[in-house]
Amino acid sequence: MKLSIVLSLQPTRFSALAFQGNPEDHFQKLKTLGYDGVELAIRDPSLLNWDRLEEEVKISGLDVPAIGTGQAYVEEGLRLCSPSPEVREKAIERLKSHLPLAKRFQAGVIIGLIRGKVEKNEDFRKGYEWMIESLKACCAEAERKNVPLWIEPLNRYETNLLNTLEEGWEVIKELGGAKLGLLPDTFHMNIEERSIGESLRKFAPYLKHVHLADSNRQAPGDGHLGFRGILDIFHSIHFEGFFSFEILPKPSPDEATKRAIDFTRSLRKE
Amino acid sequence: MKLSIVLSLQPTRFSALAFQGNPEDHFQKLKTLGYDGVELAIRDPSLLNWDRLEEEVKISGLDVPAIGTGQAYVEEGLRLCSPSPEVREKAIERLKSHLPLAKRFQAGVIIGLIRGKVEKNEDFRKGYEWMIESLKACCAEAERKNVPLWIEPLNRYETNLLNTLEEGWEVIKELGGAKLGLLPDTFHMNIEERSIGESLRKFAPYLKHVHLADSNRQAPGDGHLGFRGILDIFHSIHFEGFFSFEILPKPSPDEATKRAIDFTRSLRKE
Repeated sequence: MKLSIVLSLQPTRFSALAFQGNPEDHFQKLKTLGYDGVELAIRDPSLLNWDRLEEEVKISGLDVPAIGTGQAYVEEGLRLCSPSPEVREKAIERLKSHLPLAKRFQAGVIIGLIRGKVEKNEDFRKGYEWMIESLKACCAEAERKNVPLWIEPLNRYETNLLNTLEEGWEVIKELGGAKLGLLPDTFHMNIEERSIGESLRKFAPYLKHVHLADSNRQAPGDGHLGFRGILDIFHSIHFEGFFSFEILPKPSPDEATKRAIDFTRSLRKE
Repeated sequence: MKLSIVLSLQPTRFSALAFQGNPEDHFQKLKTLGYDGVELAIRDPSLLNWDRLEEEVKISGLDVPAIGTGQAYVEEGLRLCSPSPEVREKAIERLKSHLPLAKRFQAGVIIGLIRGKVEKNEDFRKGYEWMIESLKACCAEAERKNVPLWIEPLNRYETNLLNTLEEGWEVIKELGGAKLGLLPDTFHMNIEERSIGESLRKFAPYLKHVHLADSNRQAPGDGHLGFRGILDIFHSIHFEGFFSFEILPKPSPDEATKRAIDFTRSLRKE
């Protein structure tokens, strides 16, 4: 069972991150706690020193299984479904700019909040189509670069575009890209899936990376989700990707980071 | 086990209602389906013909256990926590205006979305205090009129004021009003409570009315909450109020209404 945790490399308002700040201060700490990897949340790759980041990750011995992209929406309003061609183009370019960095780490790039949501005064069907068109452009580039793209369904309060694994799977079916996969997040699934277990089994071949958070978005064990059963399902479907904690820093970043890995490791000895 | 369902008496954008429209078309249908009561969601009582409403309810044989007040916030922006004294005053007056109507039905008045939320550019502590001050004024009037006021904790996406039963209970403790009670909603609890069962047991003496909805806000049985266990807990704590469905009209208003009562009745024979 490979475990990682989300770390933000740039200041952000999005609070579902275990901790923020200078990565070099945290990589070694994570390794010491027993983590296998660190998932990087990045607003704009062009603002980072890639060589230095790669060196620091290498020194720590951690993998980077995934790169999160949602801050471009939260902080800058870039979204794949925007009615504005300029905004859409910027969102696509931003997403594409993550690919070469992901390539260095053999990481996947996450399509979460960057798809945005269709606002009340906008046409939903049109917004959905713009998202699909934008994703097509990103997929084409991802195939050229040979980098996986993972669609993360999010709950209804965060977006009206792709709330369930089934809705994410429909996009994969429509686009047909070989690099497209699904990223289930247990916090969002708790709100959106009729049955968490049935959905995981049904879309098992498409699951490439997992976000673990409890029902209240805190560390697993701090809410009421049945993680023993959930991990058993992933085991039974031979899931081989990373489980990455995307959790609120409660009661503190350090405690949440330790609690998440200790509790999850206690559930499965492998 | 007394069952009711939320019915909106005025057009609304809020979608977690089983159905909308002319109440006289629905009261008899609910009675025929086996409902004991109907919870009325009302934006502005002054726009209704109270005598006619009372007569129609009487003919149907239904009880009215509760009156919902959140539409005044959703449709008109009235909120108990507003930094504007005018808006606060209007919200208080609106809430007070529900009391004589509730009195006619021996119903409780719900404090849900009408407390509003503290916006990003506002001071949270100040907003919380304004909410408390507004509630004090409402409580005083509720005691004079001898009408119960029920605080409904809502999930973090709908408000930042009172997400858990414990936070609602702290307000009751602070205000000390004899008419104040708690209204647990299973959909919100699924997101906010560390343990649904433990919270229900801990605050049992304060629970006066219940909203039932499954994890996806659809009819119980359409998501993954363990309603058999939840109902057993209410039984064990001798809860004697109404269970009221506040659910999305899926797959249709009529089907959701029938499904909710059929499934819930099948769980407990009493």
